[in-house]
Amino acid sequence: MRAALALAARGVGNTWPNPSVGCVIVRDGLVVGRGWTAPGGRPHAETEALGRAGAAARGATVYVTLEPCCHWGRTPPCTDALIAAGVARVVVALRDPDPRVDGAGLERMAAAGIAVTVGVLEDEARAVNEGFLKRLSHNLPMVTLKLATTLDGRIATSGGESQWITGPAARRAAHALRGRHDAVLVGSGTALADDPDLSCRIPGFAPVPTVRVVADARLRVPPGARMFQGGGPVWIATRPGHPEAVLERLRKVGAEIVEVPASADGPGLDMPALLRALSARGLTRILAEGGAALAAGLLRAGLVDRLAWFHAPAVMGGDGWPAVDALPLALLAGMPRYRRTGLSVPGPDLLSEFVSITAPLGDRA
Amino acid sequence: MRAALALAARGVGNTWPNPSVGCVIVRDGLVVGRGWTAPGGRPHAETEALGRAGAAARGATVYVTLEPCCHWGRTPPCTDALIAAGVARVVVALRDPDPRVDGAGLERMAAAGIAVTVGVLEDEARAVNEGFLKRLSHNLPMVTLKLATTLDGRIATSGGESQWITGPAARRAAHALRGRHDAVLVGSGTALADDPDLSCRIPGFAPVPTVRVVADARLRVPPGARMFQGGGPVWIATRPGHPEAVLERLRKVGAEIVEVPASADGPGLDMPALLRALSARGLTRILAEGGAALAAGLLRAGLVDRLAWFHAPAVMGGDGWPAVDALPLALLAGMPRYRRTGLSVPGPDLLSEFVSITAPLGDRA
Repeated sequence: MRAALALAARGVGNTWPNPSVGCVIVRDGLVVGRGWTAPGGRPHAETEALGRAGAAARGATVYVTLEPCCHWGRTPPCTDALIAAGVARVVVALRDPDPRVDGAGLERMAAAGIAVTVGVLEDEARAVNEGFLKRLSHNLPMVTLKLATTLDGRIATSGGESQWITGPAARRAAHALRGRHDAVLVGSGTALADDPDLSCRIPGFAPVPTVRVVADARLRVPPGARMFQGGGPVWIATRPGHPEAVLERLRKVGAEIVEVPASADGPGLDMPALLRALSARGLTRILAEGGAALAAGLLRAGLVDRLAWFHAPAVMGGDGWPAVDALPLALLAGMPRYRRTGLSVPGPDLLSEFVSITAPLGDRA
Repeated sequence: MRAALALAARGVGNTWPNPSVGCVIVRDGLVVGRGWTAPGGRPHAETEALGRAGAAARGATVYVTLEPCCHWGRTPPCTDALIAAGVARVVVALRDPDPRVDGAGLERMAAAGIAVTVGVLEDEARAVNEGFLKRLSHNLPMVTLKLATTLDGRIATSGGESQWITGPAARRAAHALRGRHDAVLVGSGTALADDPDLSCRIPGFAPVPTVRVVADARLRVPPGARMFQGGGPVWIATRPGHPEAVLERLRKVGAEIVEVPASADGPGLDMPALLRALSARGLTRILAEGGAALAAGLLRAGLVDRLAWFHAPAVMGGDGWPAVDALPLALLAGMPRYRRTGLSVPGPDLLSEFVSITAPLGDRA
């Protein structure tokens, strides 16, 4: 199952709105087939692995990270393929909460005489599918907030100079993070200040282009922005009511307009509504890259599931731009807290990764 | 020599104004004596090691991290003791730049027929003696700036709540840092806000009590402050001209007053003058613990040699108190930068340690 989970991890960021699944088929102690969800979500992992196993699948044991589907979508159900292949046993890490499956796949296989086990390395499978599961349960994508700051949490000098605080190795690691998410989300301030391309510039790493989303209530991003030049999807999330001609100019350069209500208590968009809109369009994993207003908006609303924080070995001082605007915070006890899940040292910089413990998945409305 | 360096490290923070030295005596492949500078600076490492070796020192090889002294101080010269013991060979990591030694110890031993080697693991010996060497060469102590912040570099909420941002393991690590420095330095704001004791509360770790120094231009720290209660030295650094009666009240509770000129461009003390005054009193290693004004003052003057930065896994947002006041910084290229020397994980927190690369030792006036 660990091998199947490692295969599943390969697809993360490239299968939305589908989960990324891994599958390993073992016969007489030998691996006879392996597969993982292909970019775009099809073919499924089981189909790939069965195809490789061929006749060797008969009587084999199948390890799969998520319950095989039993409904006709754009492909025939995987359960039927497993039954037809004559496998003897199916070991499943996690039951699929998708209401079209939700145990029905397990039942179908058991009814066909296959020995079915469920719950092996379930927590690990849950982690791989975090975005998919959160979208199913909350109509929200999983959000990783990525920030790159000095040790004292600054992202630019008082004059706005920000390139570069972290070094090339950290920036490459940040591109890899983009590849492991379905979409990158930035505020319009960041889009205007840096004119970033926001794509994952690691060859082969993001076969499904990462969606670039700009939270831009006032529609400040110009059609000439660099992110429209390289192709690949750009979604501009903005409040309703902008003149059609302005929207049309953006659509002409490739933008998709996502209408989201404005925030009740600030100049930006309503953050939960924005994320629900992105979830409704199929996104399961979002990498939010700032700036300070977007970061504070997401944190304030309890929408940040994970942090990826790059610290450069430098100190800027109190006149630098803060990474996160005022939440604001009355009491220390109310501060968003995290548990460290990873620590690495890209060159001179430091990357700490965290999962939220104050806004855990499943505890939110 | 690595063993001798490890012994030398035991004394760091407890031998000022003397260096901490380690000594290992080897005869026929066996260690026959070990020693390190005792708390307070005496006896010297060589004396301790020779005492343990006894007659076995005859014909032995002596590994010592700093050139043995050849002058009469409060103890007889170590060179004479080594010659009298009949050692065959002395291997020295680092020549002692103290003008009373500075090669004369090596010459004296060579003249007595001892085989002398110098320069073995010299860089490592330089690191152990960083404070001692900086005081000799610059009349300044080595300064480690220690800060404990959120990921976004905040030390307290807008309401001033700061206890605790980091956890118990990080606070213990911070106490160990105190024990490895001669003195702790804080600004008066921190002394007033937290009323800290500032001592190293790890039993046996600081046999020579860590000096507590408060930079207090306006003499705001009251005689009732907690740091006067536990005994141990407290130095109040302040500008000249305060009424004698006020000074006397502080002296009565144990304070030593250190007069330092006021800063030409701010409300505090002149930072280089403050550190020179502490160096003149014998301090070689200072742990500066904030607050934000002191940290910025030291950074601005290029006086921070090392950083010890604790990051708690939490985000406070832009209305929290910054760890470092405005430097201020015009250009990103002017930002103080560091090289990472250590990384550890006290509980849920992160401790990154750095050495300055923009204000390296020896490049300053």
